[in-house]
Amino acid sequence: MMNEQWRHLTTKLPEWLDDCRQYAKDGEAASYIPELAKAPADALGISILTPDGSMIAGGDSGLQFTMQSISKVFTLLLALVDHGEEHVFSKVGMEPTGDDFNSILKLELVEPGIPFNPLINAGAIAVTSLIKGSSVAERTERVLAFIRLMAGDDAIDYNETVSRSESVTAHRNRSLAYFLKENGVLDEQTSVEEVLSVYFNHCAIEVTCGHLARMGLILACGGFDPLSGRQLVPRRYVQIAKTFMLTCGMYNASGEFAIRAGIPAKSGVAGGILAVVPGQYGIGVVGPALNRKGNSIAGIRLLETMSVECDWSIF
Amino acid sequence: MMNEQWRHLTTKLPEWLDDCRQYAKDGEAASYIPELAKAPADALGISILTPDGSMIAGGDSGLQFTMQSISKVFTLLLALVDHGEEHVFSKVGMEPTGDDFNSILKLELVEPGIPFNPLINAGAIAVTSLIKGSSVAERTERVLAFIRLMAGDDAIDYNETVSRSESVTAHRNRSLAYFLKENGVLDEQTSVEEVLSVYFNHCAIEVTCGHLARMGLILACGGFDPLSGRQLVPRRYVQIAKTFMLTCGMYNASGEFAIRAGIPAKSGVAGGILAVVPGQYGIGVVGPALNRKGNSIAGIRLLETMSVECDWSIF
Amino acid sequence: MMNEQWRHLTTKLPEWLDDCRQYAKDGEAASYIPELAKAPADALGISILTPDGSMIAGGDSGLQFTMQSISKVFTLLLALVDHGEEHVFSKVGMEPTGDDFNSILKLELVEPGIPFNPLINAGAIAVTSLIKGSSVAERTERVLAFIRLMAGDDAIDYNETVSRSESVTAHRNRSLAYFLKENGVLDEQTSVEEVLSVYFNHCAIEVTCGHLARMGLILACGGFDPLSGRQLVPRRYVQIAKTFMLTCGMYNASGEFAIRAGIPAKSGVAGGILAVVPGQYGIGVVGPALNRKGNSIAGIRLLETMSVECDWSIF
Amino acid sequence: MMNEQWRHLTTKLPEWLDDCRQYAKDGEAASYIPELAKAPADALGISILTPDGSMIAGGDSGLQFTMQSISKVFTLLLALVDHGEEHVFSKVGMEPTGDDFNSILKLELVEPGIPFNPLINAGAIAVTSLIKGSSVAERTERVLAFIRLMAGDDAIDYNETVSRSESVTAHRNRSLAYFLKENGVLDEQTSVEEVLSVYFNHCAIEVTCGHLARMGLILACGGFDPLSGRQLVPRRYVQIAKTFMLTCGMYNASGEFAIRAGIPAKSGVAGGILAVVPGQYGIGVVGPALNRKGNSIAGIRLLETMSVECDWSIF
Repeated sequence: MMNEQWRHLTTKLPEWLDDCRQYAKDGEAASYIPELAKAPADALGISILTPDGSMIAGGDSGLQFTMQSISKVFTLLLALVDHGEEHVFSKVGMEPTGDDFNSILKLELVEPGIPFNPLINAGAIAVTSLIKGSSVAERTERVLAFIRLMAGDDAIDYNETVSRSESVTAHRNRSLAYFLKENGVLDEQTSVEEVLSVYFNHCAIEVTCGHLARMGLILACGGFDPLSGRQLVPRRYVQIAKTFMLTCGMYNASGEFAIRAGIPAKSGVAGGILAVVPGQYGIGVVGPALNRKGNSIAGIRLLETMSVECDWSIF
Repeated sequence: MMNEQWRHLTTKLPEWLDDCRQYAKDGEAASYIPELAKAPADALGISILTPDGSMIAGGDSGLQFTMQSISKVFTLLLALVDHGEEHVFSKVGMEPTGDDFNSILKLELVEPGIPFNPLINAGAIAVTSLIKGSSVAERTERVLAFIRLMAGDDAIDYNETVSRSESVTAHRNRSLAYFLKENGVLDEQTSVEEVLSVYFNHCAIEVTCGHLARMGLILACGGFDPLSGRQLVPRRYVQIAKTFMLTCGMYNASGEFAIRAGIPAKSGVAGGILAVVPGQYGIGVVGPALNRKGNSIAGIRLLETMSVECDWSIF
Repeated sequence: MMNEQWRHLTTKLPEWLDDCRQYAKDGEAASYIPELAKAPADALGISILTPDGSMIAGGDSGLQFTMQSISKVFTLLLALVDHGEEHVFSKVGMEPTGDDFNSILKLELVEPGIPFNPLINAGAIAVTSLIKGSSVAERTERVLAFIRLMAGDDAIDYNETVSRSESVTAHRNRSLAYFLKENGVLDEQTSVEEVLSVYFNHCAIEVTCGHLARMGLILACGGFDPLSGRQLVPRRYVQIAKTFMLTCGMYNASGEFAIRAGIPAKSGVAGGILAVVPGQYGIGVVGPALNRKGNSIAGIRLLETMSVECDWSIF
Repeated sequence: MMNEQWRHLTTKLPEWLDDCRQYAKDGEAASYIPELAKAPADALGISILTPDGSMIAGGDSGLQFTMQSISKVFTLLLALVDHGEEHVFSKVGMEPTGDDFNSILKLELVEPGIPFNPLINAGAIAVTSLIKGSSVAERTERVLAFIRLMAGDDAIDYNETVSRSESVTAHRNRSLAYFLKENGVLDEQTSVEEVLSVYFNHCAIEVTCGHLARMGLILACGGFDPLSGRQLVPRRYVQIAKTFMLTCGMYNASGEFAIRAGIPAKSGVAGGILAVVPGQYGIGVVGPALNRKGNSIAGIRLLETMSVECDWSIF
């Protein structure tokens, strides 16, 4: 059956790409920093990778882009490795919020004032503060090392220009971070600026669809890398990550994506999406034009189409 | 393997029941109407049903209780059958809210003022208004018929005393309903009181764990009833229902239950929980003592324990 | 000096009316019920009354209109007469909200869930529930009697058509009222519909600018009617009413009006404004075109102009 | 009559001080920085100054304390002098909020995201950013010079230890300031830290009740200093300041204070209150024990008692 679906995928993908690329014109690339605004808004690319190493790549799959919020899945995994579940979940909750990804409301409104989940900005900042390391450089290096391991590419690095641009404009994230500090979520020793530097750095890690597909494949296989034969992350932590991807991965459109596509996925404002078909595929998508909730408009469409066509929903 | 897990379940269930029942004392039965306050707060019961008709029952599985919010899964299914996806989702959204189940905030704060999902009170009232029928009696009868079909028991009925008590005290639900009317979610022809009457009636439908297990089994089998050999509900609608159960089924503790147990489930304030292990089991649980989010405190614990022990998480 | 200001007022008023009437085109008459939508949107009228009985009337001062929210000042006075300060302020607070006049947010968000002040819709409904009387008719009659006394005109009555229209469309007010009932603000004996009927009736009381001017004059004189020589309301209650008019009288534009005009005033969605220059004048204004906060756009302008020109601010 | 009231005040003040001091035990001194926590919680002092230079001082009127939020009245005046009304009110609104003084909610929820008024923390930070000067030192010096002029004491200075302590703990204020930066309220050239440094400095200006009384007297006289015979601030700006003191001066208990005392006043978390009886008195009060809204519990009581006894309400 796998072969049949694979053949279906291979055959139909060019058509789906063409269809879905049309939706890009209803969205816009992020423009809050010049580096993101320069992205080709009508691009759409995809890579699909299977446990036996087969790969389909289509459209603009060679486009390089920054991970942005997709990196939050991996900082969560690293924080879990560094501290275990109990400590991590004393600093960040497990609930979707229904609010915008950069909302500050619930930090003031809902006791005890910890972020609702690790995939909204406030939660991801809290998680970043948990990554061990004695300096910004060391913490950044540890995230990079982890992502290089997962993506199987030692050449992966972060884009310093993007990181610096983010830092200059990130007043809202600073506001979130200081609110977290006030609420006792960030520890007293670490400065807000240090945490944010690591955060901007890991958001600025550059990848292609192929990298995302490989990282997704490891998540699809419960932390086991079928290509190297090694367990790279404890299965329980991968389970946690995939659960959050399903409930919170597409900002406050996560519920809709769960209904329409039904697979764990995480988007970023550079237009990337990392998706997982459990046991079957790791998928990387890129399409820089975003809808008003901040997800790749054509990328979402492509994943929904494929999920329906291939019956991927986990429900 | 199934046999092995079944043996494990059968063997260990009494111990798990004993362990989890201890948590009941940290919660309280709902007390807003006398009928719920009378429930045995320290009870805990479970029924598990397999596609081949095997059943395990333990603890207070014979206890009769009202479905309350569990009925919302089935009114959603019926509304989908009556109107299709597009119309239903013009009246109710697909997102978890992070707010209390009876919150009115987002109806005022978030355009276009439709309820975020069908499993919070506002959303369930909107869904109830969609159930076809020319009178309260006819609409109630249609819900009852659907639930009798799903549960395989024509004797199922609603408790009129409970429904009446709910109606007398349900000022908050009336407030939600009139706000929905203001926002154009309820149609102009139907009166708020009629919609609420149907709502109170279906919340007051009385079942046992066995009924819930059977209904859950049909959801576990994608709408197909393995015991009668009939497809009772279109598979797509069951998929939708199970997705909502995962993202929104345990009120604003849904995210946490997804992380800890990882299976679709829906709770009610009478202490019932309907849970689904896709392809494998339908499960009914009852434990009237609730935690502060409104879920059965011992019931949640029991399902989390079983899911971890049996590796049920869908992630 | 009085004479000099009076001459200034008399001389300049026609010019100010012409200037301010221009602003009407930037607003719109309320349209949620047909009776309000029919009002002449570009009308602007005013009456000014002094303790010695002198009166200036200008523009469309003969226009008849419903008091709407202006009536809330008088139901507050009547509730204070009926129950005293302590009881009234156990049901309604003293704080401006910053929210829209019909907002429900703070009833859910802020303990103990009583309305923040008597001049927002929720607070006015709570106050209306306090007016003594054994029936809707008797309560309505008591409000009418009080307003006739204050306005010195026994022919004043409410417009039944307007009251009925309000009732049919007032889903938001019903939502507020049931939320109040849930929060224990409305007593258990009185039904929400009865309270709302009295509320719709007193909002529908028909007056002219001359009536408002006379009512305002009594407030300006601390409850004493200089024309009849009688103390109609205890001075302390009038002080309370004028304080609320200053802090909350123009919905969530009250702060701005306090800065720009600096006098106690209360507006209604039919375009009326009752204003008070302490010790000097009672003023009635009407201009049906509203700004987006619900206040008469030309009426506000006229009062601000006059206040600046005549140095009326109490600060 | 003045003489009679003055005699009444002089005679009764010791008794009122004794009565009101009892309430201090129901409150607590601010404890978020050690300098404030050290204040004598049960102290209560007052100074009252008249235009002819008569002064009554009672209780702990010699206690030195930091102005804290009281300074916000004077930075508002200075910003108005520096920029005029139009520019200042393009950066900060005129409405009370009903929210806590340090709330961030409305910056996210209400377009265009400017602070609602100059006396909540967000608004005061915005106003501080408007004070002209090429450095923190110069801006601080300008505020100091203005306050020395108003208080008639060149020895007034700010407490560097307090300012530094505030800076170390002020994560919430930083969060507010960065949110303001995001919303375009703070200009791009000035750094958030510079604005906050000026803010912490002016909040840390040390005064006694006598200083506050003299500053209050000038406000009571519309910006005219009756002792020096000079107009120190334009009357219109003083009018604006007094209006905000009435509507927003006591945090989200301003409405209640307006109803109970009815005079413009501004409190600070060190326990100070500056109050104004228009045309008659400038008043300085200190009582470090605060109620849960952040106002001096005994100080509020004292002012309410005096206002009722002397009939000071402006309404």
